[in-house]
Amino acid sequence: MSKAHVSDAVIRRLPMYYRHLKELERAGVERISSRELGERMNLTASQIRQDINCFGGFGQQGYGYRVSELRWHIGEILGLEKNYEVIIVGAGNIGRAVANYDGFTKEGFFVRAIFDVSPALIGMDIHGIPVQPMDSLNGWLREHRADIAVLSVPASQAQQTADTLVEAGIKAIWNFAPVDLHLPEDVVSNHVHLSDSLHILTYRMNEEALFKSIEENARTGGQEQI
Amino acid sequence: MSKAHVSDAVIRRLPMYYRHLKELERAGVERISSRELGERMNLTASQIRQDINCFGGFGQQGYGYRVSELRWHIGEILGLEKNYEVIIVGAGNIGRAVANYDGFTKEGFFVRAIFDVSPALIGMDIHGIPVQPMDSLNGWLREHRADIAVLSVPASQAQQTADTLVEAGIKAIWNFAPVDLHLPEDVVSNHVHLSDSLHILTYRMNEEALFKSIEENARTGGQEQI
Repeated sequence: MSKAHVSDAVIRRLPMYYRHLKELERAGVERISSRELGERMNLTASQIRQDINCFGGFGQQGYGYRVSELRWHIGEILGLEKNYEVIIVGAGNIGRAVANYDGFTKEGFFVRAIFDVSPALIGMDIHGIPVQPMDSLNGWLREHRADIAVLSVPASQAQQTADTLVEAGIKAIWNFAPVDLHLPEDVVSNHVHLSDSLHILTYRMNEEALFKSIEENARTGGQEQI
Repeated sequence: MSKAHVSDAVIRRLPMYYRHLKELERAGVERISSRELGERMNLTASQIRQDINCFGGFGQQGYGYRVSELRWHIGEILGLEKNYEVIIVGAGNIGRAVANYDGFTKEGFFVRAIFDVSPALIGMDIHGIPVQPMDSLNGWLREHRADIAVLSVPASQAQQTADTLVEAGIKAIWNFAPVDLHLPEDVVSNHVHLSDSLHILTYRMNEEALFKSIEENARTGGQEQI
């Protein structure tokens, strides 16, 4: 049981487990079998057991999982028992939506400062927090802790801004810019590529017609492959 | 070559290809080998070739891919050569951020109407579009086309609102609510689970300490597995 065994696919499923277990807990469910949890999450029972075993396994043969206990363990695996100090860099639409969303505060994520380069935004109050100029970042970080930086600047500024954040000592970046960042090994990141997500939706909207056309072309021996 | 061969992992990579090829095109690169593209995207050359072959394969042995041609083909696979009529349901932080983001318009996604149940929001102007009451949805849809509904309502309202959208004839939902929706087979969806993404980031922030503690417990034979 080691870090090397935990694939990206498992990591991506962990927050799903956490969400479903929270819902079950809220609904008063006390225990659940891997089969039942699997049906709920569209996974096989053995997939569920394998995933959970990556972290030690918390169920009992023939009994299943205690919902609250498993929820708590997965929360701990996800680091959710801690509080996080957050700064937002880029006070555009996305930066503002993150700053305004109270749900994150309830989960222990506290937005402490917002930075932007635009004179039009500097000084603006967002959910009680004034937007500061980017120049103030280093000074602010000397006096405050920041565990996570939300990067919500335009694509063209993203890498350069990320470099500035790394130089200032930031170790975790939540990236909303549509750019795959190059970061040192000791800096972790996760990205929300909104347009990628929208493009996956349009792929699914068009998938059937696409494959009909590919098959049609294959049958007629057309040179055009799409 | 059929739909059955295209895994979710491949589909998730398609928008990444599209982004990287667009950047290469912008930088004036005319052709690229699967090895070079792989280095850029952190994939192996054979992975790249396999992915692209799912859709017919557009490269030439020993020559590589023509960047513009491959970008165009992948855009077509993603359905991006079309325009999409979009409605937003839920005019909160996220709904507003999507409505305000001009980048989507440039890509052919046109927000035509915004709906909400909250009297405080109805009538509000968002990027030139007035927020309408949810009651107006059916009437509006009888007179207008809507290809995609953005679902940006609170979790507790999400399934019920999705059901309303489906009944009204919507066939594609871009879901920002932190809920896995149950939808009929002929309705496609893709979700942006913002909190899942944040939790993956905190997992990565804590991963090293987590596995140190799991290994430590295994060594000392502790009963506690985390």
